[in-house]
Amino acid sequence: MAERLVVIGGVAAGMSAAAKAKRTRRDLEVVVYEKGGHISYAACGLPYFLAGDVPHIEELIVRTPEQMARQGVEVKVHHEVTSIDPGARTVWVHDLERDRAFEQPYDRLVIATGARPSCPPLPGCELGGIFGLRSLESGLAIQRYLREEKPKSAVIVGGGYIGVEMAETLRRLGLEVTILVRSGKVLRATLDDDMRELVHAELSRHGVEIAEGPAVGFEGDDDVESVQAVGEEYACDTVILGLGAEPNVGLARAAGVALGPTGAIATDDQMCTNLPGVYAAGDCAEALHLVTGRPAWVPLGSTANKQGRVAGSNAAGKPATFGGILGTMIVRCFDLAVGFTGLTSLEARAAGYDVQEFKIQASDLSHYFPGAAEAHVKLVVDGGSGRLLGGQLVGPHRAIKRIDVLATALYNRMTVPQIQELDLGYAPPFAPVWDPVLVAANVAAKD
Amino acid sequence: MAERLVVIGGVAAGMSAAAKAKRTRRDLEVVVYEKGGHISYAACGLPYFLAGDVPHIEELIVRTPEQMARQGVEVKVHHEVTSIDPGARTVWVHDLERDRAFEQPYDRLVIATGARPSCPPLPGCELGGIFGLRSLESGLAIQRYLREEKPKSAVIVGGGYIGVEMAETLRRLGLEVTILVRSGKVLRATLDDDMRELVHAELSRHGVEIAEGPAVGFEGDDDVESVQAVGEEYACDTVILGLGAEPNVGLARAAGVALGPTGAIATDDQMCTNLPGVYAAGDCAEALHLVTGRPAWVPLGSTANKQGRVAGSNAAGKPATFGGILGTMIVRCFDLAVGFTGLTSLEARAAGYDVQEFKIQASDLSHYFPGAAEAHVKLVVDGGSGRLLGGQLVGPHRAIKRIDVLATALYNRMTVPQIQELDLGYAPPFAPVWDPVLVAANVAAKD
Repeated sequence: MAERLVVIGGVAAGMSAAAKAKRTRRDLEVVVYEKGGHISYAACGLPYFLAGDVPHIEELIVRTPEQMARQGVEVKVHHEVTSIDPGARTVWVHDLERDRAFEQPYDRLVIATGARPSCPPLPGCELGGIFGLRSLESGLAIQRYLREEKPKSAVIVGGGYIGVEMAETLRRLGLEVTILVRSGKVLRATLDDDMRELVHAELSRHGVEIAEGPAVGFEGDDDVESVQAVGEEYACDTVILGLGAEPNVGLARAAGVALGPTGAIATDDQMCTNLPGVYAAGDCAEALHLVTGRPAWVPLGSTANKQGRVAGSNAAGKPATFGGILGTMIVRCFDLAVGFTGLTSLEARAAGYDVQEFKIQASDLSHYFPGAAEAHVKLVVDGGSGRLLGGQLVGPHRAIKRIDVLATALYNRMTVPQIQELDLGYAPPFAPVWDPVLVAANVAAKD
Repeated sequence: MAERLVVIGGVAAGMSAAAKAKRTRRDLEVVVYEKGGHISYAACGLPYFLAGDVPHIEELIVRTPEQMARQGVEVKVHHEVTSIDPGARTVWVHDLERDRAFEQPYDRLVIATGARPSCPPLPGCELGGIFGLRSLESGLAIQRYLREEKPKSAVIVGGGYIGVEMAETLRRLGLEVTILVRSGKVLRATLDDDMRELVHAELSRHGVEIAEGPAVGFEGDDDVESVQAVGEEYACDTVILGLGAEPNVGLARAAGVALGPTGAIATDDQMCTNLPGVYAAGDCAEALHLVTGRPAWVPLGSTANKQGRVAGSNAAGKPATFGGILGTMIVRCFDLAVGFTGLTSLEARAAGYDVQEFKIQASDLSHYFPGAAEAHVKLVVDGGSGRLLGGQLVGPHRAIKRIDVLATALYNRMTVPQIQELDLGYAPPFAPVWDPVLVAANVAAKD
């Protein structure tokens, strides 16, 4: 009889695992249970759907259950897995549409239950006009609210990348926008203060207010009318919650799956959990941070896809490994792009390194080429060894993928003198003879 | 008494060496002799000057003798060094304007005599309207000819990157353009045939003819009227020669400076030649190819600047090394950009590798993002070890610097499974969840 792989969760990691497993071993029966109504969608595209860049929300769907069926993968949407019995190797599944439950045996199991928005129980959070932004449904709900209620002002609670992206979207739609963030700092985890100044200036230039302090509640009648902060009140017609996320691990924990120090599921480099035959991948799982060598939890679609692929391959019997992450992140902020990889100087100090910081600005094209713009590059370096620990980049859109050179340098544990030697592409329309990355390395080498 | 560094040649490598040496050791006397009328200019910008993107040729000048003087570096233009006496540690200098010669002692010497265009002695090559394109003067001469003679058609002899750039420039100026190249293949040294097809298609789409065969002569009265090929004649009103270049090593060779197997000056990783106190850098010098481990000659401004900097540092007494090159090259071809690093499959086979080739095309942005375009990525891989040997990229302009990820991978001798693991930046406006580089690695890993 064919072996069966059950996958819990049908978005990035789950669908990558299912597709990869089926491709690897055609006779494997692969079943995916997704509690929502859609699979394999790109939630990261929602700000651009709301801005009108992406006309139809369906375009965010990478794969449908029908497409997966043609590849031999059975996908059940509106099916919630409610428990795992690792001894019996079964899961209990709740068919949400028919409201019935059944038991499904598995030989291999991939847990890809993702993350959920952090949502502190603030008074008034049940009011209308308050939205998170992780699912297609939430995207549609915001679009409907924007169209029908025509809000004039928005408060975005939280200053992570979704907050920054939504600030741009809502400004483009003509709303007054305030980002309310506890620290008063957007992208706090990913940028040093000196680089963040550039982002704050860009937000200000486009009319986005940044307010400091935690949100403590919401007021209004049916719909939200203000966000309460400590000693302050911010009137608004709608609220976007971007308070970060936490791994969805209740189901796994209840089944005895071990969590790691970050609170997400611990795995080895084959994405195996502590339970035999059980893998975890994506936003519910940890990953090894390649700079610190310690577990980290950085929920991103790119990592979810890679981990899912590795879990699927191993579940189908073909060994594969996932080495780890660097936390690489890029985000658009109006006319600027912001990129990050590795450790901030704060994180590097906390990890015990003898941190040196170098920040430069340099033209991203040959200085004489029309439209050349300044790219700001920051390197965080271990003073003793000269090893790169992290990189940050703020500059024009077209320059942002240079962060990948620093990510590749981090993966290879390169030192600054090695980075100086890199033979990077040069042509006046695309890069100056000293690429900004090399300028930064030259300055960091102090020569 | 202060020690004296003499630098022969004042363009990229020479000026980098001089500036770096002076910054490193303030009491060093630094004198640069340049036989032309300008120093430190960006010849690579000339196609864009001629196209009108760069309004004034002065913008291509990075540093002037006056600026260098303020930094304490003496620069003498129109001064040709005619001989080196390494025993006496002197050079003979010909002041071309005053037509007088003098002897100049040195303690350290940097040879940065660059390259000159390969110019086979073809009959008719003295006709008007035939131009090379390496100096500011040649750029001005072409501009003048275009304005005064208003040529309607051009033949570009040679299909290297200058040929491709000038084809675009001249088409934009409204000329009929034919590229006549011996092999019938543009960018022969840097692209495999399957990738070149994309470039040929782009050239055709923009009305550039590609003709095969060597040029054997030129005909015309005062000005050129046709290019003669074997059994063919190409009528034209102007000719751009882009037949490649050769290292300018006559002066060095006459002084006993050893050349390497490529015919350029051999150096160690400190840019030292075989003669004590004598360094070489830039287009007149070889470099170690980091993939093959053998000397290579790839004259590029980016390498010249790096080598000059290392030579200058060492000449000033501060040890520095230059590891080598990958031959990384990027070039614009109308709406496409073309990038290359490492070895082509042809070169890799010639070097004895068990070559495998993988070519993919993938969206450079999230598939749903407006304007997403196809990037074509080719990986050349050693079948035995899985090690990357070379990469090629043809795609939209904004995608081209992804070649730097492959260059950084080559520097670190990465294997395909390692490249698969890279944590590259992802955000819908800038990159898909699987970056084209990762897609290529996934395909090359055959999993």
